[in-house]
Amino acid sequence: MTIPKGVSSTDFAAALDAFEHTVGREWLFTSDEDVALYRDAYSPFYGEPEEPVASAAVAPDTVEQVQEVVRIANRNRIPLYPISTGKNLGYGGAAPGYSGSVVVDLKRMNRVLAVDDRNHSALVEPGVSYFDLYNYIREHGHRVWIDCPDPGWGSLIGNALEHGVGHTRPEFRDHFDAHCGMEVVLPNGDLMRTGMGAVPNAGSWQDYKYGFGPQFDGLFSQGNFGVVTKMGFWLMPEPEAYCSGRVSVFGYRDLIALVDTMKHVTNSGLSNGFPGLQSPLFNAFGNPERTAFLMTRPSPDAIERYARENDVPLWSCKLGFFGPEKVISAQWDATRQTFEKELPDARFADDDVFRFPLSAEQAARLQTPGNPEKVEFGIPNLSRFGFVARSEMNPNPADGELWFSPVIPKTGEAIFKAHEVFRTALDEWGSPEAALGFFSLPLHYFSRSFLLLFALRITRSPGQNRQSRELFSRLVALAAENGWAEYRAPAAMMDEVAEVYSFNNHALRRFQEKLKDAADPNGILSPGRGGVWPKHLREERA
Amino acid sequence: MTIPKGVSSTDFAAALDAFEHTVGREWLFTSDEDVALYRDAYSPFYGEPEEPVASAAVAPDTVEQVQEVVRIANRNRIPLYPISTGKNLGYGGAAPGYSGSVVVDLKRMNRVLAVDDRNHSALVEPGVSYFDLYNYIREHGHRVWIDCPDPGWGSLIGNALEHGVGHTRPEFRDHFDAHCGMEVVLPNGDLMRTGMGAVPNAGSWQDYKYGFGPQFDGLFSQGNFGVVTKMGFWLMPEPEAYCSGRVSVFGYRDLIALVDTMKHVTNSGLSNGFPGLQSPLFNAFGNPERTAFLMTRPSPDAIERYARENDVPLWSCKLGFFGPEKVISAQWDATRQTFEKELPDARFADDDVFRFPLSAEQAARLQTPGNPEKVEFGIPNLSRFGFVARSEMNPNPADGELWFSPVIPKTGEAIFKAHEVFRTALDEWGSPEAALGFFSLPLHYFSRSFLLLFALRITRSPGQNRQSRELFSRLVALAAENGWAEYRAPAAMMDEVAEVYSFNNHALRRFQEKLKDAADPNGILSPGRGGVWPKHLREERA
Repeated sequence: MTIPKGVSSTDFAAALDAFEHTVGREWLFTSDEDVALYRDAYSPFYGEPEEPVASAAVAPDTVEQVQEVVRIANRNRIPLYPISTGKNLGYGGAAPGYSGSVVVDLKRMNRVLAVDDRNHSALVEPGVSYFDLYNYIREHGHRVWIDCPDPGWGSLIGNALEHGVGHTRPEFRDHFDAHCGMEVVLPNGDLMRTGMGAVPNAGSWQDYKYGFGPQFDGLFSQGNFGVVTKMGFWLMPEPEAYCSGRVSVFGYRDLIALVDTMKHVTNSGLSNGFPGLQSPLFNAFGNPERTAFLMTRPSPDAIERYARENDVPLWSCKLGFFGPEKVISAQWDATRQTFEKELPDARFADDDVFRFPLSAEQAARLQTPGNPEKVEFGIPNLSRFGFVARSEMNPNPADGELWFSPVIPKTGEAIFKAHEVFRTALDEWGSPEAALGFFSLPLHYFSRSFLLLFALRITRSPGQNRQSRELFSRLVALAAENGWAEYRAPAAMMDEVAEVYSFNNHALRRFQEKLKDAADPNGILSPGRGGVWPKHLREERA
Repeated sequence: MTIPKGVSSTDFAAALDAFEHTVGREWLFTSDEDVALYRDAYSPFYGEPEEPVASAAVAPDTVEQVQEVVRIANRNRIPLYPISTGKNLGYGGAAPGYSGSVVVDLKRMNRVLAVDDRNHSALVEPGVSYFDLYNYIREHGHRVWIDCPDPGWGSLIGNALEHGVGHTRPEFRDHFDAHCGMEVVLPNGDLMRTGMGAVPNAGSWQDYKYGFGPQFDGLFSQGNFGVVTKMGFWLMPEPEAYCSGRVSVFGYRDLIALVDTMKHVTNSGLSNGFPGLQSPLFNAFGNPERTAFLMTRPSPDAIERYARENDVPLWSCKLGFFGPEKVISAQWDATRQTFEKELPDARFADDDVFRFPLSAEQAARLQTPGNPEKVEFGIPNLSRFGFVARSEMNPNPADGELWFSPVIPKTGEAIFKAHEVFRTALDEWGSPEAALGFFSLPLHYFSRSFLLLFALRITRSPGQNRQSRELFSRLVALAAENGWAEYRAPAAMMDEVAEVYSFNNHALRRFQEKLKDAADPNGILSPGRGGVWPKHLREERA
């Protein structure tokens, strides 16, 4: 057992006794086998002495038990690390960022407290997964959709607090932005509700975000200012139908107008499905001949010529539309006309129309080539994890991955620049194959910016993992030189990511630390999360 | 001159000297005539000893000057009260909440720092008004719209920080939610940027909201944790056209389905203009015969009969659509069909189509009966202030107003209940005419909740104002009994409003105070704003 540094074994034992008294013997986990389940199988430090591991885990069932656990931790100076379902794979999993922390596992608090079919909202506990809420909604016959991320087994609360993202309409894809109202156990064990939840018997906790006076919801996202025990979410009314269309172009610099036009139609609300940008020619999982061509680092002109000669578009963009059939048909027509004006040589393709609820025939087509993925219709699943599994295209899979995920401006120029910067660097650093990943186009989760996603290999070999960590660090620094920074990071790499948010000699971090010390004077809650360390650990690390 | 309580005249004089040294003699205001300009002409305490007034005002021109002003205030323990344009009429104007504060008037910081036509965003200083940004956009030929509130002379930053609201698409109507990135002078004079602004040379400060780690933007809204000196906003691409349609019903309880269907089409994104709910029969500014009928407090049945006999709809709902002409026409058709299914007896009316940029003929029709208001198209103006001016319908205007503005759930049932609760109380309290205002239907600024707005009379008579204050207090308490609370309040009434956000023995306020004391140990910044007082004043008041 890894006892937290600076805590006496007497104090630790006293805390464990008190935890057991609070939650019952069954829900305190101290054996090596049990605690090992909280290891991050994707940890970039897997099996090395620096791998942050838990000392124990405690699983409360009620808000009162969470409060009591937090009070006990304060009395005995025990670092806590709350998790919801612990499925934050590639970004830290269930493992704490600070070794010796006691994981507060909220999986038992998995109650769907309300689904409002008329106001299109839900109130849930942290252990509620996307599967749970999806099933609840279907069982109760509600006509609302959820917006889910790649891991359907993830927690709505955990994902939103991590700034996770989904695949339906832009209003719902940013999961933190789509939340409305929180209940939080503060670092001293006090219980607070935000927004209209602070009004006893409020009828609009899930209907109005702000309440009155300064707003604190943001502190609890990617932060360590409290344990969120309830959270409201806005849901999407079930649409009547969905259609999508594709715009393809062959000119290298056509990407600029393609992105600008895509922004215009999405920011106008004309297209409200998940937009997909791709290079049909240079899909990262493309054919060997094209990969070989790409490895020669051809010039833009050569690439464009290759595209035209092979009659495969260099860039394409998918646009989706939710609504009544006549409306979405008119929207796609208008979208097409908008693109034709900007890109006269563009080619267009119509996809099929899907009607909701889906017929069995249409449901069966999801996830097949040329058809929508389940997540685009708010159907939770785990299929996206398949791409790290062994397959024809991936004969030598990793054991896990470490996500490097910088935010870049939503322009064609930014894509060109990011490709150039990262490709050049990876070539120089001797990782030319890795550079291929950067022909992948950025993702469209956020309504106003692009997200580049690049998986670094995590294996059971410390040598390989050290390489991935070093590569991660160099990529973070390189991105920062260009004004790009990460939106999210594994617990073990948060310091490095936070480091680049350094304006005015780290004014943001200094303010975060000042408020952290006030809210959590004993520094017991998730030390290091979001790059924010409590006073005693800052001093120790300094 | 009202020197702040507890500050020696020596310290105060030293501070004024230092302010003058910082901003120049011209921009420090200490004469009674100058300082009087910062009085709130709508103050509910106007002319009474309790009226909170400024001691002086200082108008910095740069961020560095703001930092210096804040440092001086710390050295001399001078309470500051930053304002943007000071036009927050009915909610406190330019006057501080704590008497003797030095107003930090940011009107000189009125630079539009960027308008991005491709990403549809802007970066502005606090002194930039809606008029300023609107004019800048037109002068530069940008094809983007702003979303403005009733007072076009208001500040974008000030209004967003007050949780102000507008009239175009729902994504833009909530002005705080539509912001992206801040620069803030903290209470110790430090300068911080939030979101991607914390990354030096970030290219996406106005494109991604969160950055990394815990988020603090909310602290600066309705709060006293910093002076916001720059703020980004998302703008709306200029649409091709707009149309609207009206749905009218005669049944008293039809309001329930009317509201539910309106929510469905707005939450679906099918209708994206400003929805307007009205009672054509009982418009608050209706004709004398109907007013007289209403004063008899008729039963729902009697009201419904009256509507049918007079062939005037009891309830109506306007729905707006922005987009290409064929799309908005299809949207209105689909909307109509949705309503027909739920309310088979509903009547429908089509309004005209407007194309953008507006023709001179169409521009001239705005604000005339049956046509959109300018604010619905993001055109700033002051016409809405007209309703408090002397007119045929308002022969005895007040000198100002005090807004009572509770958030209620977005359901027909909540409207019935609110009308009943407030009408009954006002009858009992002997204000039957005032009760008429509660036949006005709530406003649709927020995407998921209703806002009731009710103006209490402010005059130059302390007696009348005392009555209005007492009425305000009783209304706040009555609303709270029903789980409704205010979204905003004049500086002088903030304590009362904050008081009802009392869950768990005021856990929210206790947390706000704890962080306030950490961020602003000398308690110099906007004491009392948002109901949050610094330590030394809490003790003094207790």
